[in-house]
Amino acid sequence: EDLGEETNYPDVEKTVKKFPSLRPVGIVFKTYILAEDSLNQSLFIIDQHAAHERVMYERYLEDFRDEKINIQQLLAPEIIELSRVEINKAKDNLKYFQAVGFDIEVFGDNSLILRGIPMIFGKPDGVNLFVEILDELENKLPGPYETRVHKIIKLACTSAIKAGDSVGFQEMQALFNQLAKCENPFTCPHGRPTIIEMTKRELEKKFLRIQ
Amino acid sequence: EDLGEETNYPDVEKTVKKFPSLRPVGIVFKTYILAEDSLNQSLFIIDQHAAHERVMYERYLEDFRDEKINIQQLLAPEIIELSRVEINKAKDNLKYFQAVGFDIEVFGDNSLILRGIPMIFGKPDGVNLFVEILDELENKLPGPYETRVHKIIKLACTSAIKAGDSVGFQEMQALFNQLAKCENPFTCPHGRPTIIEMTKRELEKKFLRIQ
Repeated sequence: EDLGEETNYPDVEKTVKKFPSLRPVGIVFKTYILAEDSLNQSLFIIDQHAAHERVMYERYLEDFRDEKINIQQLLAPEIIELSRVEINKAKDNLKYFQAVGFDIEVFGDNSLILRGIPMIFGKPDGVNLFVEILDELENKLPGPYETRVHKIIKLACTSAIKAGDSVGFQEMQALFNQLAKCENPFTCPHGRPTIIEMTKRELEKKFLRIQ
Repeated sequence: EDLGEETNYPDVEKTVKKFPSLRPVGIVFKTYILAEDSLNQSLFIIDQHAAHERVMYERYLEDFRDEKINIQQLLAPEIIELSRVEINKAKDNLKYFQAVGFDIEVFGDNSLILRGIPMIFGKPDGVNLFVEILDELENKLPGPYETRVHKIIKLACTSAIKAGDSVGFQEMQALFNQLAKCENPFTCPHGRPTIIEMTKRELEKKFLRIQ
């Protein structure tokens, strides 16, 4: 579910350090990174999935805006067989998929040929990534060209990043640094929170150390 | 401030595992240990000071009940000079101090001689420990013998354990194990919480992963 449209593109100016001194402490439930901000005296809980999604999303959008979408060519092109409904949906949105880095063409009546996927996703399963986005897509994307492209990018980020992945301390620190450079670091592209703050003061109250 | 009297002595039966699968994750603000209970799907935040106080307190009480209070003799006995008010307070409560493991006697008009301290405190500064407890003490302890002894034990535990001490992962795990064996693991001897639970479900709600 999409909790809010976001059509702002990230600013060029991204140097503001939003989490100046975040130290990763560890991860619980393979999902929530715990971090201490010793400067501002807060405990932060970060949803690694939502945070990574935000980072990927802004990077993707920026590449798109700068016309720097890179495609990684698959070693062997893949034929994707689709249902009639799916193939129509795919045909209707083909140019948007192409715009965001899917090297894809109609191939016969019920199938597509996938030759490349957006570079930003590293080494995902290209066919699955495409089909997952297609499944999430409404039949006909509304709005102007950029909004439609934007929608596909949002779905692409959701599909590409998994919760539950193991993340090391260096990766946590890198994620914080990337998140700090984001335009909107506090929500994922779908409007869910990426980070929750619990101040030292709140903790002290809970533990009755202060009134 | 004392948030509640507790006169129950710990049971002999202490085998109930109250935190069966607590895994230490790390510490924030040099005070709060974060731990994951993967079995019950909860994040626990533990006040290391309050928790250690609880553990020390129950161990101390148990030793007292079993008449196993051990004294560590100081290498060199120490003379403690006191004000008139302090010396009177000390004299009034001397037998309670002795009962809980302070080897102490009146020595002249304004001073005491300290020869030993309770074994349970490892290597603290004996004189400071004694004076801190004395300062916290009301002039004349109320109630029957055991209640008075109990009061001194409570004060002794407060004085002996510092917040802000560095604690390693092995020590965290040991603290969890000791706390799990406590009669009343969820509060310190003064009634403050030792441990706060945040369920995975609560986290999911905060992050809007579930409604």
